[in-house]
Amino acid sequence: MNYLDNLEDVKVLKQSEFPSKSSKRKKIVKDMDELLKRLDLKDEAVVSFHHHLRNGDRVLVPVMKALQKMGLKDLTLVSSSIFPAHEEIIPLMEDGTIKNIVTSYITGGVATAVSKGKLKGSILMQSHGGRARSILNEEVVIDAAFIASPSADEMGNISGVNGENSCGVLGYAIADSQKAKKVISITDSLVEYPNYPADISEDYVDYIYEIDSIGLKSGIVSGTTQVTKDPIGLKIAKDTLKAMKATGLLKDGLSFQTGAGGISLAVADFLKDYMLENNIKGSFASGGITGYLTEMLEMGLFTSLFDVQCFDLEAIESLKRNPNHIRMSASLYGNPEVSAVVDNLDIVILGATEIDTNFNVNVSTGSDGVIMGGSGGHQDTAAGSKVSIIVSKLFSSRIPFIKDRVEVITTPGSTVDILVTERGIAVNPMRKDLIESFEKANVDIIDIKELKSYAEEVMGKPEKIEKGQRIIGLSQYRDGSVLDYIYEIKN
Amino acid sequence: MNYLDNLEDVKVLKQSEFPSKSSKRKKIVKDMDELLKRLDLKDEAVVSFHHHLRNGDRVLVPVMKALQKMGLKDLTLVSSSIFPAHEEIIPLMEDGTIKNIVTSYITGGVATAVSKGKLKGSILMQSHGGRARSILNEEVVIDAAFIASPSADEMGNISGVNGENSCGVLGYAIADSQKAKKVISITDSLVEYPNYPADISEDYVDYIYEIDSIGLKSGIVSGTTQVTKDPIGLKIAKDTLKAMKATGLLKDGLSFQTGAGGISLAVADFLKDYMLENNIKGSFASGGITGYLTEMLEMGLFTSLFDVQCFDLEAIESLKRNPNHIRMSASLYGNPEVSAVVDNLDIVILGATEIDTNFNVNVSTGSDGVIMGGSGGHQDTAAGSKVSIIVSKLFSSRIPFIKDRVEVITTPGSTVDILVTERGIAVNPMRKDLIESFEKANVDIIDIKELKSYAEEVMGKPEKIEKGQRIIGLSQYRDGSVLDYIYEIKN
Repeated sequence: MNYLDNLEDVKVLKQSEFPSKSSKRKKIVKDMDELLKRLDLKDEAVVSFHHHLRNGDRVLVPVMKALQKMGLKDLTLVSSSIFPAHEEIIPLMEDGTIKNIVTSYITGGVATAVSKGKLKGSILMQSHGGRARSILNEEVVIDAAFIASPSADEMGNISGVNGENSCGVLGYAIADSQKAKKVISITDSLVEYPNYPADISEDYVDYIYEIDSIGLKSGIVSGTTQVTKDPIGLKIAKDTLKAMKATGLLKDGLSFQTGAGGISLAVADFLKDYMLENNIKGSFASGGITGYLTEMLEMGLFTSLFDVQCFDLEAIESLKRNPNHIRMSASLYGNPEVSAVVDNLDIVILGATEIDTNFNVNVSTGSDGVIMGGSGGHQDTAAGSKVSIIVSKLFSSRIPFIKDRVEVITTPGSTVDILVTERGIAVNPMRKDLIESFEKANVDIIDIKELKSYAEEVMGKPEKIEKGQRIIGLSQYRDGSVLDYIYEIKN
Repeated sequence: MNYLDNLEDVKVLKQSEFPSKSSKRKKIVKDMDELLKRLDLKDEAVVSFHHHLRNGDRVLVPVMKALQKMGLKDLTLVSSSIFPAHEEIIPLMEDGTIKNIVTSYITGGVATAVSKGKLKGSILMQSHGGRARSILNEEVVIDAAFIASPSADEMGNISGVNGENSCGVLGYAIADSQKAKKVISITDSLVEYPNYPADISEDYVDYIYEIDSIGLKSGIVSGTTQVTKDPIGLKIAKDTLKAMKATGLLKDGLSFQTGAGGISLAVADFLKDYMLENNIKGSFASGGITGYLTEMLEMGLFTSLFDVQCFDLEAIESLKRNPNHIRMSASLYGNPEVSAVVDNLDIVILGATEIDTNFNVNVSTGSDGVIMGGSGGHQDTAAGSKVSIIVSKLFSSRIPFIKDRVEVITTPGSTVDILVTERGIAVNPMRKDLIESFEKANVDIIDIKELKSYAEEVMGKPEKIEKGQRIIGLSQYRDGSVLDYIYEIKN
């Protein structure tokens, strides 16, 4: 507080120097050229995007193409996820506009191109909580955050529930808005001041750029947000409920998270019936929110939902009208450097592309090593929850599910507790407490190695993947340490 | 993004080094000794408090006494306001525990003691927006923020609307929670997780300390939150409405703020009738919120309220149930370094202790130079609004209201537009546009110097105050520049 010393030396304004009334900032820019001029980005700039419009996003591509047109090179693209809708940026990787990618989930042509080594630089794969951590602690410094905004007013209050392309909560964009050097709201719905409830308020926004359409609302709903109808999937979901009961956590105060995969949603469905039958009143459910969870909220099975991202239109509607449906930022969701909602989770249900006998999970690449996913909240919820449960079929194709070592470690086995398959339930040997609970509850468990042997008996031993020599990226843990290299694929 | 280069050199964790599941932070401390041990404060530490419990606050004093007991010296006390309830800290100024005070409003015994020169250091008087600015831009670095919390859960989600001493919005504590090195929730109402709606979420909170009572809810309501019944005050309010009409701003989309003084509230009351009669639909009202404004919200006269602080129990109830009653942080309210709500204000009604012929306003000291107030949002709203109107009686006591130079400049005259008194309306000569509007509207105006002469005819010329030689503090403008010295008083 050194300006409180030597007051005599402090300059006091004269009447003639008194400041005039403050003027309202003019934030609306009329076209992309003006916007880019104001941003004054240089080669090697770091630009960020959120993915709440998912495969319906129509913001990332035109912005990146405009940066290409400016002749910028060696950009780092920090997008919370990247979808097939973004394939038009592949030429920008080839011509050196984009050097590096930092993301939490990437699928489609861009992912394949990265695996084929098309980035001059590399890819950093983070969890949702890890992304927030790295932005807030300035490990990743964003020069410009381009925020696809379902609605904004002229001062930059951004709301995800107003506007034609309302996508609900904007949880993944919050850290960007707090820390980026420049924050740009890109909207197709400029509304009257004040626009509320604001996910991002005007004090965090520098510019507003209006475009015809930020996306296709239909693209928000991914193909997976339906309960599975497959009998094997349903059996796994039923056995998962059995496992959950065995943990002793299915009681009043339960906190729960599930992904939007078909089996995971079936688990939510069975859980709903179980809670109703046994009159269990849960605490909260969290994560990406679907209509299955909003229905459970409305039934009083949970007191509240912590929503970082709406997965379907029911979730968006619920967010609009239900005060117990609460927005959360990605940091509040899973940042390991603060106390986060995941730390209060009892049970999380997660999927996996592969798992190994150390319970390490890969959701970043296929078994062929080609990138096709990423942690999202996988790492965060596995780490934070009392019990993390992987649900998966042993045989979903000709591809082996259990390996000695997964291709890429997305989530460390030290945080993965239970695996439920159609051939049995395996419990991580590190969780002696759970093994004991299962014994008491008379729920059979099977060694994960036995499950693997069984699968190999049926399908034969998998061929070893031949990786390329070149390391093209890192699978980062939520705390910033590195779990695994990602290699170029041979083709 | 240098960690994306030379990937071969990046350390990858071995399986044996994989992190274990994250454990829930234990934030609850059992007593003050444990809390202070964990905070590890040193001499010259900067500690902060908010004032949402106003004169009912029972948190600041016991914390400061505990710091005194530890033997800490030369602390800087950053409290958004200081009230008569805090007089027990005067001995801490005398014994050197507290060296400096940074505040936006200070009244009662502590204020008088400061004026008498009892601080070893000095006092920095800021506006609400200026306080947020200085904390967020790290001009003021807080070591520990002690947040009086009407309710908190064990993870530190703090809500101002839950709990016995619910005081509503916690807008002044937001910057502290975002920037202080340690954030401590002090609560008398430890509730079940998750506590929502949270003014401050768990990701910003380090420790939770439970005490018997954080305060007296009755103390939240200041004595001034009633419409005046005084006929002179009512005349001023009526003339103020006339002035507002003359500005041309009383139309659909009106945004409005008024303080909680008796005349200001009478203005709100007359405005209500006028808006009803003329079917005017306003945009927002802002600031500290009273039942007068929540009633206008419910009548549809405003679409929304931006609330930084609840001034009465009606406001708290409205905040609980009305989604159009929106929380705002002090930064969103008035931080001059970001776009703030005040920049969108059409009209603000403000009080004054004194005004001078340059329209400079003093709300920091009495005419005797003794500190008894502070800017609060005065500077911020005067600067941001299209039209700022000071309402005051010329004769409220034997003390002159209009001077050649106010004792201390709180708000620069360059941002003050209109003065309404019982003897006429003065318009700042800098506002030629307003003078023209008043002419067109046939509303008489009078030169502020004439008003002054008239007052002096009636009351005689005021005696010149004899100031002490010692500068004891600064009246800081919201942007960080300094408007005036504050001098020790002779006694």
